[in-house]
Amino acid sequence: VSSISTNSPDLAIELDRSRPRGLRAQIEGELRTAIRSGRLAPGTALPSSRALAADLGVTRGVVVGAYDQLIAEGYLRSRQGSGTVVNATAGPAARPGPASSAPVPPVAVDFHPGVPDLDLFPRSAWGRATRTALQTLPDADLGYIDSRGLPAARRAVAEYVGRARGVSADADHVVICNGFGHGLSLVAAALRRAGHEAVAVEDPGYDGARDTLALAGLQCRGVPVDRHGLTVDALDRTGARAVIVTPAHQNPTGAVLSSDRRTALVDWARAVDGYVIEDDYDAEYRYDRQPAGAIQGLDPARVVYSGTTSKSLAPGLRLGWLVLPDELVGPVTTLRRAADSATSSLVQATFAAFLTAGDLDRHLRRTRLVYRRRRDALMDALDRWFPEATPGGVSAGLQVTITLPDGMDEARFVERAVRAGVRPYPLDRYRVGPRRRSLDPAGLVLGYGHLTPAELEDGARRLGGVAAELPD
Amino acid sequence: VSSISTNSPDLAIELDRSRPRGLRAQIEGELRTAIRSGRLAPGTALPSSRALAADLGVTRGVVVGAYDQLIAEGYLRSRQGSGTVVNATAGPAARPGPASSAPVPPVAVDFHPGVPDLDLFPRSAWGRATRTALQTLPDADLGYIDSRGLPAARRAVAEYVGRARGVSADADHVVICNGFGHGLSLVAAALRRAGHEAVAVEDPGYDGARDTLALAGLQCRGVPVDRHGLTVDALDRTGARAVIVTPAHQNPTGAVLSSDRRTALVDWARAVDGYVIEDDYDAEYRYDRQPAGAIQGLDPARVVYSGTTSKSLAPGLRLGWLVLPDELVGPVTTLRRAADSATSSLVQATFAAFLTAGDLDRHLRRTRLVYRRRRDALMDALDRWFPEATPGGVSAGLQVTITLPDGMDEARFVERAVRAGVRPYPLDRYRVGPRRRSLDPAGLVLGYGHLTPAELEDGARRLGGVAAELPD
Repeated sequence: VSSISTNSPDLAIELDRSRPRGLRAQIEGELRTAIRSGRLAPGTALPSSRALAADLGVTRGVVVGAYDQLIAEGYLRSRQGSGTVVNATAGPAARPGPASSAPVPPVAVDFHPGVPDLDLFPRSAWGRATRTALQTLPDADLGYIDSRGLPAARRAVAEYVGRARGVSADADHVVICNGFGHGLSLVAAALRRAGHEAVAVEDPGYDGARDTLALAGLQCRGVPVDRHGLTVDALDRTGARAVIVTPAHQNPTGAVLSSDRRTALVDWARAVDGYVIEDDYDAEYRYDRQPAGAIQGLDPARVVYSGTTSKSLAPGLRLGWLVLPDELVGPVTTLRRAADSATSSLVQATFAAFLTAGDLDRHLRRTRLVYRRRRDALMDALDRWFPEATPGGVSAGLQVTITLPDGMDEARFVERAVRAGVRPYPLDRYRVGPRRRSLDPAGLVLGYGHLTPAELEDGARRLGGVAAELPD
Repeated sequence: VSSISTNSPDLAIELDRSRPRGLRAQIEGELRTAIRSGRLAPGTALPSSRALAADLGVTRGVVVGAYDQLIAEGYLRSRQGSGTVVNATAGPAARPGPASSAPVPPVAVDFHPGVPDLDLFPRSAWGRATRTALQTLPDADLGYIDSRGLPAARRAVAEYVGRARGVSADADHVVICNGFGHGLSLVAAALRRAGHEAVAVEDPGYDGARDTLALAGLQCRGVPVDRHGLTVDALDRTGARAVIVTPAHQNPTGAVLSSDRRTALVDWARAVDGYVIEDDYDAEYRYDRQPAGAIQGLDPARVVYSGTTSKSLAPGLRLGWLVLPDELVGPVTTLRRAADSATSSLVQATFAAFLTAGDLDRHLRRTRLVYRRRRDALMDALDRWFPEATPGGVSAGLQVTITLPDGMDEARFVERAVRAGVRPYPLDRYRVGPRRRSLDPAGLVLGYGHLTPAELEDGARRLGGVAAELPD
């Protein structure tokens, strides 16, 4: 029995040459089995009869005959001008998938925090930058590259964060990664391997970061946040030698870390021989106060700086960067190499072209105006419909907090709100420890960047209605 | 003292309004400091004087004056038609970077294995697919997506691997990841959390996989490979309940796992309640033997199937996929979410468009011919210049092994070869345990996919010269 197979387009058909007169039946049989088993999915285009015949070493008539038979049987159909495809009604029942998470009831206005307006993504500028990258990227950059990233992308990022955020960066200390969470997971793994057992986190603070730390085998130690940001003098009690902090616009309270505390924070890192992990959250969107530069500039040897395009462009890009202290560059790069090697070099080259052409600056100028208008619209609407709520963190970012009037319970408020067609997010999901009633008022987070002024008005009206109906 | 700042383009200039007549000097001073400190890197384009003036709320003349002064001082220069940029001679000395790894001496012919010819990357087809993706991707797909990947990309991959490799896949069980190593790191972490302590690996086998397992806290247990592939009956002795295997074209020997052993392997996985991790290595490039379908089809509940575009397109894309047993979908997806969330949705959408348009099939047809010709050229040249070497693994993939004549030492051969201008790769780096002299001949790996026929001829000639000069 000798058999050959087709290389093209990978149908994996095997013919038994010892039965030459059965060739058409063999092709039919192979295709039928492949379609019934789901190996050839509905809609799949088959090769032309000429191509398949050439690949299998049979006459074209054999393949045409097999195709015709299967069209007659309903397995295949002819598509006007584009050959033969697997019929939509063919194929097996779907294998049951894993259970999906419980469905979230739909609401008219969802204040989910943490995403920009994706409709503002600069598709044509990104397309232009992609063309530039495809035209100019050297072949070698399509291979296995430096795990820190392409030198051109690292240089462009170093230049940008230096200029826009006062970060002291050169390309050697930049690692291009797949967003903030990815960068944090690398740094957390490096700290764990260096003997760290715990990391201090803001309380309230970003819950996703705590998940990432826990997966790296690190404990989270909550440190209270007040209106000047992280209470730095409480760090010593934690026993941790590293802390994650959002100094530009604390997530979720919106506090800007005060100047005294910035200095104290870096002093603490030096004293414990540890690190500050600076999540430069929402720093691109500042509306009416002066930008506070990054802490990293105070001591590049003690601060891990982390930025992302998830808020400024789109989370789906999965693109961010770390600027690392010298002694973390090696460990983080080694971990990166053994995990996913590097961020896609085409994405990196595209972003470098995008930055270098000034497209990020242009996009930020344009969207800052849009988001400022939305922020103003939300403030006006809350003032009108829900004046008892005290807003916070309004000077920057894509979300605000509101403090609920005395005695209102977050979970109960959210439950009623969802029934009233609006979804705010309880501060509770950000808290590390239980709420301390006296210090820590009940509150909600309202993400507004993705909502139009009309939606914001509607949402505020619904929130005010819920508050009015809740008994004190 | 009141101060304002510019939002645009993020120069972070702060003006002290209480000294209005010093505004030009203040702007000059801020820019000078930023350039000297490296915050504004050479080549950075400054905003137009009109834009900066508007942002700072000063007259345009003030900004023009500041720019002119800094041009005169050599900090800035005017660029024909494109504004004002930071001068290349300005800026601080670079901060010293981390030590780079030892330089590799250059050779005329480098047989490094594991990369395709990057010059063959289908740039224009990829550009077309990118345009399609940018035009059709819904906004929501630019946000935080299912960590398994975009449904359209998972469907396209399921269809492709079903058709081309006989994999039993539906979109629910596919996870799009950033290449084989990344997929393995996710699976390894999931196994570790499920209580696995060791994973069996092929000996010789791919050393990068062992690094990834070690980082996940798993021990590697070597299992010998012979000319029929992994010696499955040796698995029981390892105590492991999972094994990584390259059945289509064993890396590095090129053996195809025999049909008996395929069945035995899946039986073993069932018996130990474990998994086979199938690295479907080089399966796209088969030259003169029938393709062996993926093992996964034998038992989708026991086999983790892993594919990548690193050999078929380019490693720099960082794009691959897992087809997972039902019970691993949840754990792997959870780990993925906490690490880098998902693969870039634009890359996924581009690949889905590329696959659906038939561009991968076309590319594979074209490159298969190129690589087959190179394989033939290398075989001819070895036959001519180094007939004592016995080639293996020649029927598929982008590399062959050669067995060295009796008594020749791999390390010594490689050292001499590099001095003769050619770099082969010793089998030793693939070995888990020490070489067993009787069973396991000394050998070299020659990657040829990236070399032209003339280079292959030259390389074989140099190898033959080294062999002729080495004493027995």
